[in-house]
Parts: sequence; C-alpha cells; structure tokens
Amino acid sequence: MIIAIVGLGLIGGSVARDLARTGLATSRLGVDSDPGNLRTALELGLVDRALPLAEAVTAADLIILAVPVDAIFRILPGVLDRISDRQTVVDLGSTKQLIVDAVRGHPRRARFVAAHPMAGTEDSGPAASRETLFAGRAAILCDTSDSAPDALATAERLFTVGLGMRLLCLDAACHDLHAAYVSHLPHVLAYALALAALNPEHDAQVRFSLAAGGFTSTARLAKSGPAMWYPILSQNRTHLLGAIAAFRAHLDAITHAITDGDSDRIRALITEANRIRAFIA
Amino acid sequence: MIIAIVGLGLIGGSVARDLARTGLATSRLGVDSDPGNLRTALELGLVDRALPLAEAVTAADLIILAVPVDAIFRILPGVLDRISDRQTVVDLGSTKQLIVDAVRGHPRRARFVAAHPMAGTEDSGPAASRETLFAGRAAILCDTSDSAPDALATAERLFTVGLGMRLLCLDAACHDLHAAYVSHLPHVLAYALALAALNPEHDAQVRFSLAAGGFTSTARLAKSGPAMWYPILSQNRTHLLGAIAAFRAHLDAITHAITDGDSDRIRALITEANRIRAFIA
Repeated sequence: MIIAIVGLGLIGGSVARDLARTGLATSRLGVDSDPGNLRTALELGLVDRALPLAEAVTAADLIILAVPVDAIFRILPGVLDRISDRQTVVDLGSTKQLIVDAVRGHPRRARFVAAHPMAGTEDSGPAASRETLFAGRAAILCDTSDSAPDALATAERLFTVGLGMRLLCLDAACHDLHAAYVSHLPHVLAYALALAALNPEHDAQVRFSLAAGGFTSTARLAKSGPAMWYPILSQNRTHLLGAIAAFRAHLDAITHAITDGDSDRIRALITEANRIRAFIA
Repeated sequence: MIIAIVGLGLIGGSVARDLARTGLATSRLGVDSDPGNLRTALELGLVDRALPLAEAVTAADLIILAVPVDAIFRILPGVLDRISDRQTVVDLGSTKQLIVDAVRGHPRRARFVAAHPMAGTEDSGPAASRETLFAGRAAILCDTSDSAPDALATAERLFTVGLGMRLLCLDAACHDLHAAYVSHLPHVLAYALALAALNPEHDAQVRFSLAAGGFTSTARLAKSGPAMWYPILSQNRTHLLGAIAAFRAHLDAITHAITDGDSDRIRALITEANRIRAFIA
C-alpha cells in the first residue's frame, strides 16, 4: 500500500516510523509545507520521497492528514475533490465536529474516515518523532456510518496493524466533549499554571529548583506550542468552555473549603477526587 | 549511626531503603502508629527493629520525622523535650513555617533541622516505597541559622550521602511560598480536574478510555490521599490561596480569549506559557 503522510511533525513522523517498522506501507510519500521539516524527515528516513500535496494525493492508496486541525479543516475538501473511489483519506486531528462538518455532503465523503489517535508528547517536529508512540493507546473513529466499509477497514488496519492501537467508535460531538475533559482542559490548566508559576520573573530560578515530578508532570503540557494548540482550543471552544466551567466550580468548592478551614469538606473533596484511581494507571 | 524513622509510609520507607543501601545507618529503628505499616516494614526489611516512639527517640543518634505535617507539628516539641545535645532531629514535612514556629524558643531548637526533600509519588504506604526516590532532587533546608552546625552537618550527610540529593537553603516562608506554586497548587488543580472529569458518573468509562499521557500525568496527583494532603493544604493556606488566585487570574485571561475568539491573544498566552520549557525537563 502506498501511503502519503501530510504533515511530518511529531505525529506524522511517528506514524511514518511505525508504518516502516510494521511493513504496512510499501512506499511512504511525505508532504510538508515547511522545507526544513521535509529535509529532516528525508534525512531521518521517515519517508521514501517528498512530494507536493497534489502529487502525493494522486499517487497514494491511503492519505493520512497529520497537520494542525485548522489546516485539516482547510485542505480536506480539496483532497477529497482529487481522489478516486479506490483511495482512502484519514485525518488524525484532535477535534472532530468541525472537520466532519466541513465535508458533510461532499461527493467523496464516504472515502474519508475521521479519526483521533490519543497519543502525543509536548515536543514537536520530525526530530521528536518516535516508534511505538501509539502502542496500546485508543484510536477514536468518528461518525463511521458516513464512511464506506472498505475505507473504514483500511483505517482500522492503519491503527491496529500499523500503529498497535485499540479502536473506539464515537460520534464526533461525543468525541469532542470527552476530549475537552481529558486532553484540552488539562492543556489549558497547564498553560495557566505555567503563567502563574513564571511570575514574578525574579523568583523563577529558585522556584523551579524546588520543582519535583508533580510539577513537571502537570506543567509539561504547557510546553505545547500555539501552532498546534490554538486551533484545537478554538475549534472545540463550546465543549472546552463547558469543561473549564465545570473545573472552575470544583476549584471554587476546594478554595472555599480551604478559606473556611473546613477540614471535613476538604477531606471529603479529596476522597471524592481519589476515585480517579479506578480509571488511570 | 543509629537512625530512627518515624512514619514508615512511602517517604519514610524510601528513606529507610536508601539508608540501608548507602550504609549511612548502622541500625534502623522504625516507628509507626499503624501496626499494619510496622509489620509490612519489618517484612520488607525496611527497618531492623520496631519500637514505640519514646524508646526510638532515646536510642537513636538521628531521628527522622516522616509523618504527615499535622503529626510533625504535634509530636516535634515532645521529641525535642526528650533528646540530648548529641542527637539530631530532622523533619521531612511539605510545609515549614508552622513547624519551625512550633519549636521557636524551645531549649533544644538547635538540635532540629527543618527540611523538605522534594520527591514523592501519588502512592502511599511502606509497600509503595522504593530505592533512589530522592536521587538528584532538591532537599530544602529551612532557617538553618537556628540549627547547631553539627546538627546541620548530620542533616546534610543524610540528604547528600544517604539520599543522593542536592541541597538548597531557604527561609521557611520562602519555602512555603514556592512550594505552594510548584507542589500544593498542582495538587489542588489535579483534584478539581479529577472531580470535573468524573462527572457525570455514566460518562466516566468512555471518557477515561480516551485518556492518554497528558491526562494521566496531570490527574495522577489526584490519587494522593487526604491523610497526607489535607494537613498540607491547611498549614500552607495563606500562600496556597495566593497561588490559587494567581492561577485563576491566568485561567480567566485564557477563558476570555477563547470566549472572544481572540486568536492573537490566545497565541500570545500560549507562547508566554511556553517559557516554562527553560525550567522543566
């Protein structure tokens, strides 16, 4: 199978590594608007050839869109315009509703599978890519009834055989709601935590010399850059604002209990939060 | 050197492991008010003997207090009442001001070194203890001018030779301020995030099946239990409420920018938060 990977950053580069390792791709075509990324990807052997978008789309059996979600939203309709009924397009974006809305009713809609592999790091670029980034994680497939069975089967092979992921089907709205809580909200909290901890400037050196694993594991998400994350926060605005409001209500409850010195209430809130033990490793 | 470890949970147990490994202790005496912890610690070989507090304090050259900060506050004056000028007491509590205040003017104050080794995990109990938990981390020594030089030297040997830590001297108020930002605030955020994400109950199973490393690394602090964390949040209330207010102001700024769809502002805030890259690994 000839596979085109559009966007050779952390995610696209890591996909490329796994496609070589698992042998799913007979040929990997790389597309990136940044010539530096393209050169690095070729040097690292992430792709076999670099091509312009239009040529890669024409040549590939499977086209994977691994660019930021604003770019997916922008280029997806044009990509579908160019493909035949034997080709499949899969996107890997962190938001889904706006993206499926952008191609609703498109004559080639059935060739598209909307997906979100739940994996990543706070780093970016092809040099940050790594093998087995996706192994064991969930790949969310959205609105699958709008995809042709053979396109869906191709996407499933990509995520299971190619990347070692487990599959979960959700409608796009449901995906965006849950992603707001487990991915987008934690990023917003990390940004606000970093901004609070970085001020005042003159305290930063001493302050961060105290930081241990707890701070690092929370604040590391604040290393994620605006090119990827502004479009995510923007596209998932409604669900994200709901999640922020829910978070804020619980933060208020804890803050009031601390202000009042209400030990029973604080202990009860901590004990309730401890229920998270059942859900995360 | 005979060393008594009071409190054989994650922290005390991990200290005990390193003291055996590095040979700093010729004998390790264990104290714990929980008979189950004491039995587990003996079975795991964390300590050589289990003793009541008073007997261990009499027998040891160095007494390490590794109990929750409310218990340190309660027992420290009585421990100092019982020791001679050849013995040293070190506490490992996560707050420092109230603890140093509790023994200000005590006749044996100079035998006490107030310390906070910046390490831990979200787990608890002696079975969760591990070797090299502290290696490479910062050990904060507070108000060191109130400690006798030989007591300070003993504490420094404990943290450097015994636990492999680097030393940092701060006054207690300064410690509590910075600890509020890099440790206590991240715990409060994790509790509020967990409470938000756990509701509604019927969504939890699907929601957490989406969770990847970003959520887990933020929310894992919410596994920390109330016995250790209620007293910390309570004792460091003033600095913590200040840190929460600072965090909330930045969260408000991000929320307003998202609400207004102000892309320049969102990108600028993310870029500013990205400065954290210079300070954390």
